[in-house]
Amino acid sequence: MAVHTAWIITIGNEVVDGRIVNTNASWLGRKLTMLGFNVLRVVAVPDVEEEIISVIKEALKRRVGVIITTGGLGPTYDDKTSECLAKALNVKWALNREAFEMVKAKYSQKGLSMTNHRKKMAMMPEGSKPIPNPTGTAPGIFIKYNDTLIFALPGVPSEMKSMFDKHVEPLLKEVAPKTVVVEKTVRVINVPESALAPILEKVLSRYSKVYIKSHPSEELGKPIVDIYVRTASTNRREAEETLLNVLRILREELERLGGEVHETT
Amino acid sequence: MAVHTAWIITIGNEVVDGRIVNTNASWLGRKLTMLGFNVLRVVAVPDVEEEIISVIKEALKRRVGVIITTGGLGPTYDDKTSECLAKALNVKWALNREAFEMVKAKYSQKGLSMTNHRKKMAMMPEGSKPIPNPTGTAPGIFIKYNDTLIFALPGVPSEMKSMFDKHVEPLLKEVAPKTVVVEKTVRVINVPESALAPILEKVLSRYSKVYIKSHPSEELGKPIVDIYVRTASTNRREAEETLLNVLRILREELERLGGEVHETT
Repeated sequence: MAVHTAWIITIGNEVVDGRIVNTNASWLGRKLTMLGFNVLRVVAVPDVEEEIISVIKEALKRRVGVIITTGGLGPTYDDKTSECLAKALNVKWALNREAFEMVKAKYSQKGLSMTNHRKKMAMMPEGSKPIPNPTGTAPGIFIKYNDTLIFALPGVPSEMKSMFDKHVEPLLKEVAPKTVVVEKTVRVINVPESALAPILEKVLSRYSKVYIKSHPSEELGKPIVDIYVRTASTNRREAEETLLNVLRILREELERLGGEVHETT
Repeated sequence: MAVHTAWIITIGNEVVDGRIVNTNASWLGRKLTMLGFNVLRVVAVPDVEEEIISVIKEALKRRVGVIITTGGLGPTYDDKTSECLAKALNVKWALNREAFEMVKAKYSQKGLSMTNHRKKMAMMPEGSKPIPNPTGTAPGIFIKYNDTLIFALPGVPSEMKSMFDKHVEPLLKEVAPKTVVVEKTVRVINVPESALAPILEKVLSRYSKVYIKSHPSEELGKPIVDIYVRTASTNRREAEETLLNVLRILREELERLGGEVHETT
């Protein structure tokens, strides 16, 4: 599998049982896509050791370029990501000195000592590089396995996002494809999705590198369909020109069918 | 794997690339959990045939009790769920008469004829039972495979939800465990998660059927942790009593540590 593929693995019962909406996954999916990665799978698993290990192993078996996990790095009994990662990679799970100093510094600022539960947050798969957590206490984990880059981040969204922006994104940029991604969505009123389907196929047969997807919110009644168009190129001008050409053709064809076309984003 | 396990599979590039937040998954996860199912995995895959087929096959291999998919049932070239389902199950993909009549009726009301793109929405794995779509045009699919019940629903949330409530939930209730699920969340202020971790472990060792999870929003500074408690029993009174006992013990122990305990939901 290509180096520019990614899996996002979110860990936590509260995600699979629907108590929370998985905004970490959509935030990361957006970031990775705009960096030029192809997100092939987003998986949520509960805090169950065998489930966490099996999904990490599947991703490794598929030779995914980048794996990002969120959740399960805290001090409680059900925070199992780090230990499961060690098991999936078949390496020792041991105290990471650098991580230990990070965690200790956080608690000693507050006059709190290192209990076993706090020390647990510094246990990592051997060969890991801890990722500093600016606002919380649990460091993230960065580890390479063959050609796969693995990043384990906390589940608290504010911590996850700031750690991604500061420490993960710079590393990903080094391996990301050198392309510019451009996109646009237009809204079409009065043409049912089933009637515009042949038009999309016609455009796609001419522009093989363009991605188009229609999102109907109403098929009968007063049909409303959003059409999303995305393309990428190593040359920004080329990408933008292709996008404009595709949008122009779509507009012409859709207006011929009696559609009203509105620009959205 | 037990009959009361479930996987949710959401299909669509817009989910993996983060253009939308996966509210279908959280809505379904909540529904399945409250019906007594154990949601073991929520997977989002792009509109890529090999990805869709492989995830369905994985779920079947794991002998999951219930598989619910959303998305990919519409008329466009990238709506591939039905065909991929047939391939994963290794059965023919053919025109389903009952589904054809459903789709035809929708369009003929509007004076529209059946094009190939519309007919496609009536193509289903052999042995499927179509699920009526009250507001949209694409019927859902219900099919059994060994002991696994498979439901394929549209991705448009309003269509998915009404079809689940009307046609899927009644079927699931027949096989669901005859238990009542009760839950409560309390908010604890002033006790860092790392300090309350040992208390949770103590309670869990006494109440093995209770599920407890802590969700920190702040560990240092002014610590805030939400503690979620859930239990299930065939007897509602027993479930409620257990929940109250656990909450009472938690409150006592947390107040002893200087915590303020607030009831939330």
